[in-house]
Amino acid sequence: MQLGMIGLGRMGANMALRLLRAGHSCVVYDHHPEPLGNLVDAGAIGHTELAAFCAELKTPRHIWLMIPAGAVDSIIEELLPLLTDGDTLIDGGNSHYRDDLIRAERLKTHGIHYVDCGTSGGVWGLERGYCLMIGGERAIIEQLNPIFSSLAPGSNGIERTLGRSGAMTSAEQGYLHCGPNGAGHFVKMIHNGIEYALMGAYAEGFNLLKHAGIGRQDHATDAETTPLAHPEHYQYDFDLAEIAELWRRGSVVTSWLLDLTANALVADSTLAHFNGQVSDSGEGRWTCLAAIETGTPAPLLTTALYERFNSRGEANFANKILSALRHQFGGHNEKPSV
Amino acid sequence: MQLGMIGLGRMGANMALRLLRAGHSCVVYDHHPEPLGNLVDAGAIGHTELAAFCAELKTPRHIWLMIPAGAVDSIIEELLPLLTDGDTLIDGGNSHYRDDLIRAERLKTHGIHYVDCGTSGGVWGLERGYCLMIGGERAIIEQLNPIFSSLAPGSNGIERTLGRSGAMTSAEQGYLHCGPNGAGHFVKMIHNGIEYALMGAYAEGFNLLKHAGIGRQDHATDAETTPLAHPEHYQYDFDLAEIAELWRRGSVVTSWLLDLTANALVADSTLAHFNGQVSDSGEGRWTCLAAIETGTPAPLLTTALYERFNSRGEANFANKILSALRHQFGGHNEKPSV
Amino acid sequence: MQLGMIGLGRMGANMALRLLRAGHSCVVYDHHPEPLGNLVDAGAIGHTELAAFCAELKTPRHIWLMIPAGAVDSIIEELLPLLTDGDTLIDGGNSHYRDDLIRAERLKTHGIHYVDCGTSGGVWGLERGYCLMIGGERAIIEQLNPIFSSLAPGSNGIERTLGRSGAMTSAEQGYLHCGPNGAGHFVKMIHNGIEYALMGAYAEGFNLLKHAGIGRQDHATDAETTPLAHPEHYQYDFDLAEIAELWRRGSVVTSWLLDLTANALVADSTLAHFNGQVSDSGEGRWTCLAAIETGTPAPLLTTALYERFNSRGEANFANKILSALRHQFGGHNEKPSV
Amino acid sequence: MQLGMIGLGRMGANMALRLLRAGHSCVVYDHHPEPLGNLVDAGAIGHTELAAFCAELKTPRHIWLMIPAGAVDSIIEELLPLLTDGDTLIDGGNSHYRDDLIRAERLKTHGIHYVDCGTSGGVWGLERGYCLMIGGERAIIEQLNPIFSSLAPGSNGIERTLGRSGAMTSAEQGYLHCGPNGAGHFVKMIHNGIEYALMGAYAEGFNLLKHAGIGRQDHATDAETTPLAHPEHYQYDFDLAEIAELWRRGSVVTSWLLDLTANALVADSTLAHFNGQVSDSGEGRWTCLAAIETGTPAPLLTTALYERFNSRGEANFANKILSALRHQFGGHNEKPSV
Repeated sequence: MQLGMIGLGRMGANMALRLLRAGHSCVVYDHHPEPLGNLVDAGAIGHTELAAFCAELKTPRHIWLMIPAGAVDSIIEELLPLLTDGDTLIDGGNSHYRDDLIRAERLKTHGIHYVDCGTSGGVWGLERGYCLMIGGERAIIEQLNPIFSSLAPGSNGIERTLGRSGAMTSAEQGYLHCGPNGAGHFVKMIHNGIEYALMGAYAEGFNLLKHAGIGRQDHATDAETTPLAHPEHYQYDFDLAEIAELWRRGSVVTSWLLDLTANALVADSTLAHFNGQVSDSGEGRWTCLAAIETGTPAPLLTTALYERFNSRGEANFANKILSALRHQFGGHNEKPSV
Repeated sequence: MQLGMIGLGRMGANMALRLLRAGHSCVVYDHHPEPLGNLVDAGAIGHTELAAFCAELKTPRHIWLMIPAGAVDSIIEELLPLLTDGDTLIDGGNSHYRDDLIRAERLKTHGIHYVDCGTSGGVWGLERGYCLMIGGERAIIEQLNPIFSSLAPGSNGIERTLGRSGAMTSAEQGYLHCGPNGAGHFVKMIHNGIEYALMGAYAEGFNLLKHAGIGRQDHATDAETTPLAHPEHYQYDFDLAEIAELWRRGSVVTSWLLDLTANALVADSTLAHFNGQVSDSGEGRWTCLAAIETGTPAPLLTTALYERFNSRGEANFANKILSALRHQFGGHNEKPSV
Repeated sequence: MQLGMIGLGRMGANMALRLLRAGHSCVVYDHHPEPLGNLVDAGAIGHTELAAFCAELKTPRHIWLMIPAGAVDSIIEELLPLLTDGDTLIDGGNSHYRDDLIRAERLKTHGIHYVDCGTSGGVWGLERGYCLMIGGERAIIEQLNPIFSSLAPGSNGIERTLGRSGAMTSAEQGYLHCGPNGAGHFVKMIHNGIEYALMGAYAEGFNLLKHAGIGRQDHATDAETTPLAHPEHYQYDFDLAEIAELWRRGSVVTSWLLDLTANALVADSTLAHFNGQVSDSGEGRWTCLAAIETGTPAPLLTTALYERFNSRGEANFANKILSALRHQFGGHNEKPSV
Repeated sequence: MQLGMIGLGRMGANMALRLLRAGHSCVVYDHHPEPLGNLVDAGAIGHTELAAFCAELKTPRHIWLMIPAGAVDSIIEELLPLLTDGDTLIDGGNSHYRDDLIRAERLKTHGIHYVDCGTSGGVWGLERGYCLMIGGERAIIEQLNPIFSSLAPGSNGIERTLGRSGAMTSAEQGYLHCGPNGAGHFVKMIHNGIEYALMGAYAEGFNLLKHAGIGRQDHATDAETTPLAHPEHYQYDFDLAEIAELWRRGSVVTSWLLDLTANALVADSTLAHFNGQVSDSGEGRWTCLAAIETGTPAPLLTTALYERFNSRGEANFANKILSALRHQFGGHNEKPSV
């Protein structure tokens, strides 16, 4: 099947490559010529002009956008005059699902179909396949089935869920029509919200292991330091890389994120290359906004988000107020932490 | 190698079976005769008297205790007169690591070695293998290597961590000597603390998906209900079992706990058999106690624990105070939730 | 000074009364005749028709809206044809500050001034005065000074902040021009966000005191119940009403909310009239949305909000997932809480 | 009444002074001569030797210890040979209530009574009075009534709780016999736990106000920064000192801690003298330990504690793990926060 791909960054280029390897025909676009090279070598047709790109595609066109969420609306504006009734745009990036609702409505008035597709897989997707969470009209999504099934990981190697029988569902191959427009990005949004808390759980756990030798240190005995009642309980010196490795085998906390933690810790168990200022990219925030709007408690997902804000120094003024209050009521002076 | 196993519940019986299948010799003890049957059929020697059990074992004895944490000290009292200098006791249950420190010290005065071994694997361990987190004297633990390596999952099927080369470490086969006494249960404790937060992350995420159709419901418009500003944003009706399945393939949140979530949701996506009162079994609490004592922030692990307390109604009086205060300052009357 | 008051519920009626007592002239409107009676007795002119109400007011009119946030836009639509260039509308209710921005812009095109005024004081305001957080154009707000200063508590009885000298600022009398439009409701929003967490702090503390006798109860000893390691540490039976009272005198946690807690507990220290399903009214949510959007950690304010959602049963499905997972990996069956 | 006071730091010296002003007779002890001067000038008898101090006191002696929790047991050892059957020791510091249980038991065998007294009031207590939370034997505490009632603030100026009538209880004067030994420090412990969360609530709220102008800043537009969707919503520049002042009048969040916040902000609204590394002094931790042990959810109190740990850099390794994971799965590089 033929697919047009717009956006050849980390994700888009690999997805086009995976499709080419699966025998699909890819027309790829980027306004810079450089990213085209590899893909053309792999069999794609490349364009640096949108008009030529659109002209190359057979109608009804299927065009996948793999660009930053903030750039989607302007590229749609550029594309609209070049498209024909019956064409389909797939937004595979990290758009807010509410923008999907608005776009789908608007494109419909031009006879253009819109599909939102949350895409998980990161830099590993080329080999591992992409997990696809899809929203839009059923008939259109069915037409795109060959594309989705080639991008997705398929069932290979993963044990079937207990209690399932009969033919494999598409979810069992790594792609799913989740519902009408917005549903794909909604499910991806929640996926990322969960991801933040999973990451945070491992991070806190390994940090605790890191602190397990605190009893071996000399401890300040001034009024601003809580004494460690039982230093003999905290005398350990754990090998974090080996523990991450261990838990990958037969433990309850086995996961892909743990595999990645093991990768990182084996490279350098002190993680000295990182300073610990953690970015967040939008979907974790939107998940928490949805929790608040729907009145659904999500304390873990939100705490994980706030921990990232905190890592970037955004709690600093709040902390100063705490120190100021301690000074006010108790005459306590701040002391720098050890 | 010969091992004595005390405690033939869910865990102990399967562990003995796994050892027998690996060609080890097992002497098993339970004060009830029933649990012995299966194991004797599988080649074990069974006893319902501790004295006979100990007499059966060649010295130096290696005895594995797989019993509730609360019963370990009393069984040690019973065993002590039956043991000989140089014997080893392994506590494979869920003891607090502080109790390990006390026991190891005490047993040492009798010439008995003590090994603490955190064991993860649950009802799946027989087939999947057990992840073993081990604390104690190096020489003793090396003697037990044949046992540990047979109980552990081994490396089969799990991809090697990037950056590792050379001979496999024991961690890569699912068991690890983590440090001196207590280290094994300490690492297991943190493992369980992480487990609570991982579980909570999925639980919150699926609960949010469950609430994604809230805009389709009629909404009360009284003063005690926050209006839903945009009902059109919450019109979805997700198939939770299919989404759990989907995320098992190529997503960032892939994990064994997600596999189990998929199992549970495919059986009944409403989970109607459960009432939502969630137990906790000690190690999650101990993890949080360690966080507080060492001054290490663990907001996710602790929030996950408190959510369980809350699920059992333990916040009820706190909530009544909130309602009483709203009544006091604003004249608000409680309304039952929809 | 003359003021028109629209909305004679719990808040509006008392505010009009406070103004009348201070010698202001009040024209009051409600579409029901009943709420007018008391105020007319106290010297107000009452109307049940908006047109007559507006005709009664001298131009430039000053009209205070004290109605549910959801009703503000429609009443403005009704008022617009009845107003004259130079009139001022004050929204004293709980509007979202974003709506203020839109309204102010729109009214400006009609020559009408708009003031947003967050009002705190609840059912106590008539006697205690109202704390007023005001946003809008400086000149307009200065004209309204007589109204604001009469509604506000004034400085009486409250000790001056250390380090302040010279003439009292308006803040010291309980009202403040916080900034341009939206600023008033923004500050009120944060005020309520803080309020939720303050309430929650007391609620958790008293709940802990309530649990301080847990060691005197029989405790289940099954595998689903964590044993209480030291029952002797939890043998207390505290008089919560007396403790609330005590803390009102000289303690660090002295506050008006504590005064109200003392009121509630002296009436019935079991709070048996409440079931513990706690409403939230919007501003707590908006505070958390602002925290997330601005990347500012607000874990306490958000946790307090989620605890309310939780009190209304909204975590139930999440909890069922936890129980289902415990059943999956460990064969644990749920037990009802004691 | 005669009282011996041991420990003349910030708290002890002021308490002795308050007692002297109330007409009591005070014998004061410190191993340094300097702190004695002022008190001797005010009418106390001073000693730098414990033996002379004890000899000075009439039997049965009443000795108040106002020293760091860590020093209490050793001073008791020194005192024991100098005391007589029937004497009473009062620990007015911040001991863990569990230590009270042990001490009371031990002292009883020597015929010495023990009273634990949680004392709140800080540097303000001399003028404001001390809030006293008392545990121990009823008869002994009744004997000490003149001391407690002089240290406590009394009822002056504080409005009586609605619903109370008849004679004032001691709680209404600021002291309370809370229960048997340990009860005083238990209640004080919870008091401090609440205090942490109250402080945190204000700190987060003012930090949010501080961030309300974030839309006026230039915002990075790279892939590691979540865009601010509506900069027009965050254009405010609030005067935090005036807002703190405002809320002291008639608002729901009025409190003594808010008074102190107003003090601090009027001195310097940027709090530039503080770096934001916040100490914690033990009781907040013990509150959370009690929450965990009793299975009582205390998410606010615990979050407030963890925020302090976090302010001291103790989450840093956890944050590095998050950044390492983002790098692993998405190729994201850390960026320093603005």
